[in-house]
Amino acid sequence: MTGYQEIDTPALIVDLDVVEANVAEMAAACRGIRLRPHIKSHKMPELARLQLAAGASGITCAKLGEAEVMADAGCDDILLAYPIFGTPKLDRLRALKERARVRVSLDSVEIAEQVATTGRTEVFVEVDTGLRRLGRAPGAPTVALLRQIAKVPGIVVAGLLTHAGHSYSATSQEELRKVAEREVLDLVETAALYGEELEISVGSTPTARYGAVVEGVTEVRPGTYIFNDANMIRLGVATEDTVAARILTTVIARPAPDRFVVDAGSKSLTSDGAGTPGWILVAGRPDLEMRFLSEEHGVGRCRPGEGPAIGDRLELIPAHCCPVSNLFDVAHGVRGGRFDHELLVAARGRVR
Amino acid sequence: MTGYQEIDTPALIVDLDVVEANVAEMAAACRGIRLRPHIKSHKMPELARLQLAAGASGITCAKLGEAEVMADAGCDDILLAYPIFGTPKLDRLRALKERARVRVSLDSVEIAEQVATTGRTEVFVEVDTGLRRLGRAPGAPTVALLRQIAKVPGIVVAGLLTHAGHSYSATSQEELRKVAEREVLDLVETAALYGEELEISVGSTPTARYGAVVEGVTEVRPGTYIFNDANMIRLGVATEDTVAARILTTVIARPAPDRFVVDAGSKSLTSDGAGTPGWILVAGRPDLEMRFLSEEHGVGRCRPGEGPAIGDRLELIPAHCCPVSNLFDVAHGVRGGRFDHELLVAARGRVR
Repeated sequence: MTGYQEIDTPALIVDLDVVEANVAEMAAACRGIRLRPHIKSHKMPELARLQLAAGASGITCAKLGEAEVMADAGCDDILLAYPIFGTPKLDRLRALKERARVRVSLDSVEIAEQVATTGRTEVFVEVDTGLRRLGRAPGAPTVALLRQIAKVPGIVVAGLLTHAGHSYSATSQEELRKVAEREVLDLVETAALYGEELEISVGSTPTARYGAVVEGVTEVRPGTYIFNDANMIRLGVATEDTVAARILTTVIARPAPDRFVVDAGSKSLTSDGAGTPGWILVAGRPDLEMRFLSEEHGVGRCRPGEGPAIGDRLELIPAHCCPVSNLFDVAHGVRGGRFDHELLVAARGRVR
Repeated sequence: MTGYQEIDTPALIVDLDVVEANVAEMAAACRGIRLRPHIKSHKMPELARLQLAAGASGITCAKLGEAEVMADAGCDDILLAYPIFGTPKLDRLRALKERARVRVSLDSVEIAEQVATTGRTEVFVEVDTGLRRLGRAPGAPTVALLRQIAKVPGIVVAGLLTHAGHSYSATSQEELRKVAEREVLDLVETAALYGEELEISVGSTPTARYGAVVEGVTEVRPGTYIFNDANMIRLGVATEDTVAARILTTVIARPAPDRFVVDAGSKSLTSDGAGTPGWILVAGRPDLEMRFLSEEHGVGRCRPGEGPAIGDRLELIPAHCCPVSNLFDVAHGVRGGRFDHELLVAARGRVR
């Protein structure tokens, strides 16, 4: 069924040829602006270095622990896209700033005052362009916040930042394009109202290629594009051929004529998207449909009397690749259908 | 808001007083039969030893990697409740059998033949009592399988095993009791039809206390009871006071009057149950409602103008504790509202 028989299952397989093509493609799509990939999608120093070598201007991290690992690996320009609160984290931020250019995103005066205790800090102010997570609305509400934050001694407002997580529910390329254009315009108009030149930083893989060509954008921060996943296939921005990360698994049971069970469950694939039909795909096997996961079992349906035999190996395309990389200490890098080398997921589990 | 200010967030907090009470309560409920807790729920050698000291007759593991960690910790009677396939795992099973009594569950002749290559092996044959995962139907279909498996040289059929995962959708104690009684009866009747005395092993925390008192059962294998979680509260078998594992988190944003954001998302809580109202609870704060998680953000709703301030700490009760322990390298043990010591989650990430 698959090559690399020496790899026991379940395993996180990373096709390095596909990774390189994905990295090059996004770098080309972002020519003329800065590409600052979010490393949460892979958490692997080797792949962060690959992205930087291919033209990324720096990286994005969510947590200090991830940023520390990536600084150890030589990344010296880091956007910490997360509000930092409390003495332990501020001490670590201070130390991190000694060895890398670090900018921080936030959405409140309270966090700006915290971050300012580490000395002069460039910040991105987060704007809510529709996700309803962090940030205030574009326009006047954000401008009012910008004026307050700019008054905090030590804080330098470097730019505006948003993440179009709501693009994941788009149902067409046209809708994705509109979300991408809207978020850039929201930020550009807010900066104009504020009256100072600001960086305009937008995120998300589904919108990155559209956002990168909108007048005024200065930086995009996609993450998932390096691996892609079933979400990206559903959104029409990836195909099975451009999915670089898969879970190699073994069929361990055929308890009923129309049922097979594999040795990968939510402990390898997460529960992201669970229950949505087609949330996980069996690569190259449209005849097989995953039904549900428990922690160590993946239960699938096949045509009665057909389907895989006990011992067959299948490759599953995760719904969402980012949390999957968090579940493995190492990934298995493959090239041309053969095992190449292990990749250390060094930033795995860095919850703080 | 909470004690142990020296613990940075997000963190997995384990209340050791509650753990000890939960372990004692289940041991008492299972008096007269064998209690073989599933260690997947905690993955911590220290807690497995606690369970054994409190009267557990052995432990249950899902994966070889978990069993190896627990054997290292001194557990010498292990039920590996998972079908084992392939040379790398069979080699490890052979080695494990040198240092512990190991029995294996399976549901096919193919897996029995695999396992038999490691020498004489006692097996539990899994029966499908309603989950539609592994196993054949009780009665004649399982008896036919038992007769085939018993013919495999080296295989000793020790018992029948089932897991009532479908009990998680019960809506009353009466329904839980019926599921528990039915699964034991299904196995007892199947053993009678087979005509040999077999162990009758049933699992799941919601059904354990009911199943333990049904005539014929010999062993129960609950896991979640050691920590409990929001699922168990919903099912009426736990309360906030008997929840021992919580995610300590900090409010990092108040972007809107009715919205707060904490620094724990699906990377600390998993996506299990996501979207169901009340799938995650804020301990002691019925006024706060979690709305959605992204990987590093937990977004909650409060009454407009009320709710927690930036910097406040909250404790979240996970929907499902078992996959949560898989996300942390260490847990923070507390007693009487004070930090006590770190617990190593040594079996975390043992996917194989």
